[in-house]
Amino acid sequence: MKNFVLKGNILYSKNSDKIEEYPDSYLVCEEGISRGVFRSLPEQYKNLPLKDYGEKLIIPGLVDLHIHAPQYAYRGMGMDLELMDWLQQQAFPEEAKYIDLEYAKKAYGIFAQQMKISATTRASIFATRHSEATKLLMELLEDTGLMTYVGKVNMDNDAPENLIEESADISAAHTIEWLDGIEGRFQRTKPILTPRFIPSCTKALLKKLQQIRTDYDLPVQSHLSENPGEIAFVKELFPEAAFYGDCYDRYDLFGQKPGSPLTKGTIMAHCVYSGDEEIALMKQNGVFIAHCPASNMNISSGIAPVRKYMEQGLHMGLGSDVAGGQTESMFRAMTDAIQMSKMYWRLVDDTKKPLTFDEAFYLATKGGGAFFGKVGSFEEGYELDALVLNDEHLPHPQKLTLHQRLERFAYLGGDVQGIVSKYVAGQCILKEQTA
Amino acid sequence: MKNFVLKGNILYSKNSDKIEEYPDSYLVCEEGISRGVFRSLPEQYKNLPLKDYGEKLIIPGLVDLHIHAPQYAYRGMGMDLELMDWLQQQAFPEEAKYIDLEYAKKAYGIFAQQMKISATTRASIFATRHSEATKLLMELLEDTGLMTYVGKVNMDNDAPENLIEESADISAAHTIEWLDGIEGRFQRTKPILTPRFIPSCTKALLKKLQQIRTDYDLPVQSHLSENPGEIAFVKELFPEAAFYGDCYDRYDLFGQKPGSPLTKGTIMAHCVYSGDEEIALMKQNGVFIAHCPASNMNISSGIAPVRKYMEQGLHMGLGSDVAGGQTESMFRAMTDAIQMSKMYWRLVDDTKKPLTFDEAFYLATKGGGAFFGKVGSFEEGYELDALVLNDEHLPHPQKLTLHQRLERFAYLGGDVQGIVSKYVAGQCILKEQTA
Repeated sequence: MKNFVLKGNILYSKNSDKIEEYPDSYLVCEEGISRGVFRSLPEQYKNLPLKDYGEKLIIPGLVDLHIHAPQYAYRGMGMDLELMDWLQQQAFPEEAKYIDLEYAKKAYGIFAQQMKISATTRASIFATRHSEATKLLMELLEDTGLMTYVGKVNMDNDAPENLIEESADISAAHTIEWLDGIEGRFQRTKPILTPRFIPSCTKALLKKLQQIRTDYDLPVQSHLSENPGEIAFVKELFPEAAFYGDCYDRYDLFGQKPGSPLTKGTIMAHCVYSGDEEIALMKQNGVFIAHCPASNMNISSGIAPVRKYMEQGLHMGLGSDVAGGQTESMFRAMTDAIQMSKMYWRLVDDTKKPLTFDEAFYLATKGGGAFFGKVGSFEEGYELDALVLNDEHLPHPQKLTLHQRLERFAYLGGDVQGIVSKYVAGQCILKEQTA
Repeated sequence: MKNFVLKGNILYSKNSDKIEEYPDSYLVCEEGISRGVFRSLPEQYKNLPLKDYGEKLIIPGLVDLHIHAPQYAYRGMGMDLELMDWLQQQAFPEEAKYIDLEYAKKAYGIFAQQMKISATTRASIFATRHSEATKLLMELLEDTGLMTYVGKVNMDNDAPENLIEESADISAAHTIEWLDGIEGRFQRTKPILTPRFIPSCTKALLKKLQQIRTDYDLPVQSHLSENPGEIAFVKELFPEAAFYGDCYDRYDLFGQKPGSPLTKGTIMAHCVYSGDEEIALMKQNGVFIAHCPASNMNISSGIAPVRKYMEQGLHMGLGSDVAGGQTESMFRAMTDAIQMSKMYWRLVDDTKKPLTFDEAFYLATKGGGAFFGKVGSFEEGYELDALVLNDEHLPHPQKLTLHQRLERFAYLGGDVQGIVSKYVAGQCILKEQTA
């Protein structure tokens, strides 16, 4: 049933300046596509089934541009480490377990269920290097109704023996086997090429991935300029590259060069330390930045210059980066992004104004949504992803505006308790429980 | 009933280095005082009533050294402002409403109830300048079973007409009226002298408060060195003071000078920009620092040098600082403190190591608890404040240690949902709901 009307207090972004507010209004969906928001219901939609959410808030679904499914198991633990140590002591040992499909089923089952009830409607997800477990993850995600990209990770360098891929050839062969194995199997769950990051990939592997990307016209996701220690290591490994992003670009894994026949984009997570050349190349190639503020705090990376990226008109969305970030809550990612931008303004560069709440909301909806097409807004023609929010568990003595209620929900109530219903591309995947 | 045994997975701090872990152990309470934690129950306690919490975690109650009760109404809203603008546009207009006792009853009723179900067992609380509403707040808090200090705010300078106190004399008179009005009325709710901060107080008022403090032997709470704009303003107002804290110290409102007959301490919130002289005076006078990381982010103040304060052996605890901070959750304050300390290390001074989880837990329990006496630990002789935590709503596929479960709860589940029971000084104020 993809033709309907939702009634309630509706908020969404057209641009990053200002959240649009429609009290007690109508959101029309036909064939999974928004026909817009109306203060009174136009005649031609009056025969559509209408669901009245009363005083509740209705907003676009939130988009998570960067999350690691296998790391969900240890979210919020082992946080007293910096990136490179954290990878060796936390990430790699956990990821090695996913060779065992029984363990993967249990762990990914939890992940998929928690993502289903979260605020996220779209996500770009790292699995592990294991192709069988990655297929399993895709099956589980397909069943949730979420729309996702999922990547089998490529890593043939600098990882423990029980996790590393034995060679570039084997990594590539497993990738092709994975891609061919899922061909045509899923409606909502798509593959994305996922070189872990430059330190994990030999040049031979990058070369193979370049070919695979061309052959399959795949999108790409990876990590970029996250941490000073990591960046120094990349310089050692790749002395010929002009900057970190150039390592990917040399193998056509960095967006789409002008005139490229490739149709799918690239997400680079973090970009905490991207310099002018890297920024210019991201802009030219249409690379999406996944800004992951919680992760950047937890593993002591630093603060990304998000205002600069916005000023320069780069594509940007937010990422939870579980388990560098401790939670899949994209409401939390929104408010973390604001808080971090304030510390950037105060401690790094006071010409870069902090993000406003409206801007952070935009990034978490339409900003990241653009990676998935016309996603993240209720404007006419957008795929209809929506959350219905109940903020009754947050008592208050005074009258609140819709904007205040939304801001408060993001700062306080961004937990699953308040998310009562969820629509993805016009399909209701989470129905309001009647008490 | 203040004599009992609690059984469960018990964690607490003796010092800031390391959390003690007692799986499946016994916490003994006699007359509200801990008799210690035992791996097997000593013979002499076997006749005490025993409550078995099974797999749940039992930890000391958390201590909030700094929170504004009237600002609870707008927690998580209007966050796109810096301190001095935020005060004028958010704090002052809301606080002015508390002249109306009906409004105060509604708003403070919400605050008291939410504090009761929160992780906090002890708190030091700002009310408004209104003595009647402050008495009402104290009544409501007394009923919760929490142990708190509450202060009627003093402010006779630089505030809107509908909030400012007309003169130092009137402010002092209302303070005395408030103190005399509550004399002997409460077991758990104590008064604390509360000059708002230096910009809000004339020197005439500070002089009056000095006398009141001496006459009533009161503790003191205020704000210190929070924000560069505020600090510059204090310098203008008080050119004769050597530093911000000196303004308070000149009126005996800054801890206890050596040899002072005063027996009650002082809490100074924030201390983001305290210099060496101020630090030395805080140390000499035993001033408690309330570190409020969320607030320092939200109103763009900066990052307090907590490692420096720990190295120097200053008294320190954590504060939620609602509504500069958006939530009363002291679990959130713990993890915010860790995250901020990582950004301090990365961006300000890389000789100051980030806080560990164990250190943040110590600050939120025994560190701040010391302001209330022997509070914040389960060591023998401590007043027994305890939380019982259920983390079953946070699924995981692998076996977890107690430390991992606690760290994860703080980072993720620090919401009221997981707090199933709560004891304050041996009294159970929140009983486990049986489903």
